[in-house]
Amino acid sequence: MLEAARFPVVDTCVIADEQPLIEDALRRLATQSRLVVTTGGTGLSVRDVTPEATRAVCGRLLDGLAEQMRAEGLKETPFAVLSRGVCGLLGATLVINLPGSPQGAVCSLRAVLPVLPHALRLVVDANTPHPVPHPASHPAPRPVDPTGHPGVPVSAPVDDEGIRPSGPDTVAEPLSDPESAV
Amino acid sequence: MLEAARFPVVDTCVIADEQPLIEDALRRLATQSRLVVTTGGTGLSVRDVTPEATRAVCGRLLDGLAEQMRAEGLKETPFAVLSRGVCGLLGATLVINLPGSPQGAVCSLRAVLPVLPHALRLVVDANTPHPVPHPASHPAPRPVDPTGHPGVPVSAPVDDEGIRPSGPDTVAEPLSDPESAV
Amino acid sequence: MLEAARFPVVDTCVIADEQPLIEDALRRLATQSRLVVTTGGTGLSVRDVTPEATRAVCGRLLDGLAEQMRAEGLKETPFAVLSRGVCGLLGATLVINLPGSPQGAVCSLRAVLPVLPHALRLVVDANTPHPVPHPASHPAPRPVDPTGHPGVPVSAPVDDEGIRPSGPDTVAEPLSDPESAV
Repeated sequence: MLEAARFPVVDTCVIADEQPLIEDALRRLATQSRLVVTTGGTGLSVRDVTPEATRAVCGRLLDGLAEQMRAEGLKETPFAVLSRGVCGLLGATLVINLPGSPQGAVCSLRAVLPVLPHALRLVVDANTPHPVPHPASHPAPRPVDPTGHPGVPVSAPVDDEGIRPSGPDTVAEPLSDPESAV
Repeated sequence: MLEAARFPVVDTCVIADEQPLIEDALRRLATQSRLVVTTGGTGLSVRDVTPEATRAVCGRLLDGLAEQMRAEGLKETPFAVLSRGVCGLLGATLVINLPGSPQGAVCSLRAVLPVLPHALRLVVDANTPHPVPHPASHPAPRPVDPTGHPGVPVSAPVDDEGIRPSGPDTVAEPLSDPESAV
Repeated sequence: MLEAARFPVVDTCVIADEQPLIEDALRRLATQSRLVVTTGGTGLSVRDVTPEATRAVCGRLLDGLAEQMRAEGLKETPFAVLSRGVCGLLGATLVINLPGSPQGAVCSLRAVLPVLPHALRLVVDANTPHPVPHPASHPAPRPVDPTGHPGVPVSAPVDDEGIRPSGPDTVAEPLSDPESAV
């Protein structure tokens, strides 16, 4: 689904439901990519802490994206209001929490996918200094091309929907400027 | 209203509008119950601090429930957008802030009541380790039965709607496993 | 637009996109006014930190107002979900973040303007103690009259819409009780 929308997947990983591990994974993936999508860990179980990890590492939140995912989900099920996923910016990388259920994840991603290319353009525009987690590795800030680089290798397979069916997986989308990836 | 929905009320109390006192009450009630409902203290007055107390004690928030309460309220009054109530999880207990006005409280509770049984099932499922504020008193984690135990005594009366008309009251719903209540 | 709604503008200023400077400006304007409206700095660019400054200084948030601004914006553009503006209370002063684009700012302000007079009445009612950032300068708490005092001088001009077209400007609305302003 992400690849169909011209977001080539550069990395995926499966992380245990431990907040410090998820935070570490988010920080690492944010150095590789402008978009990090997580699935799972957004529910009410005491082990569901992906939103907390995301809040902890993202200096700035995007409440409107999470609201939109729930509003669209509500058209399918009243239980969409229970999804606790958040969206935020970790430096110049957009992090999006999707639910763990495949239907919920697809519905949520579909709710925000149309605005993601524009969102990624806004994060880094030509007039904006471009601090990232490791600025030394990004000597030449440039405008983002959200269509990405289709040739970027995908480090792990994903299922037909581009989403793993369960667990707090993270799927990293490529840096628009992959040669500067650490 | 809560009892009609098969949530027997096990405790109620009236707390002054002081954030530390509200936090203490929430922590105490969360040891007795899987659902704690507050009324009042969600407005804009400088003494309205129930949401702040709730955020302070709840490690995890449920923004979607609060959004849903406001969205339903908006069908009755444009001033529903001013309600600052939040919902969150204090360990394995769900905390819900309702407005202090009886109409607002009823409307808000009605907005989320249909999903509460499922929500409480999700908080503790059979496959989930079950940390609670006082784990020693909960030696045998079990799946939640949100219909509760109708025989649990109610420690204070509530009005016909199951809601007190004003003040930052808290109404505690029973533990599904009341014999483990402290 | 604000003046047409009987909110006379008492001060405006233009602040650089630096969180500490925005926080200082918000704190200063809150001593002069019951309503502070910012424009700009709510986007995704790494320099957009007005919501973070607002969260940092506002002890209490009003999520419903921000939701309402985005919901109304969504009727005009799908990109409204990307606005990160927040609303909150700094003591007894209401702070509202509007987007930097004139269309976005007008749309967002229009979404909440009808409830602002009532909101300001709720912040300070006759039965409520009235702590403010500098309580010593407010010896006589009084009910707010949100129609304000049309004679209060406006310290800087604003454009026809009452909103500056760009930058993290702040527009302070008058104290209802201007003789107590510091």
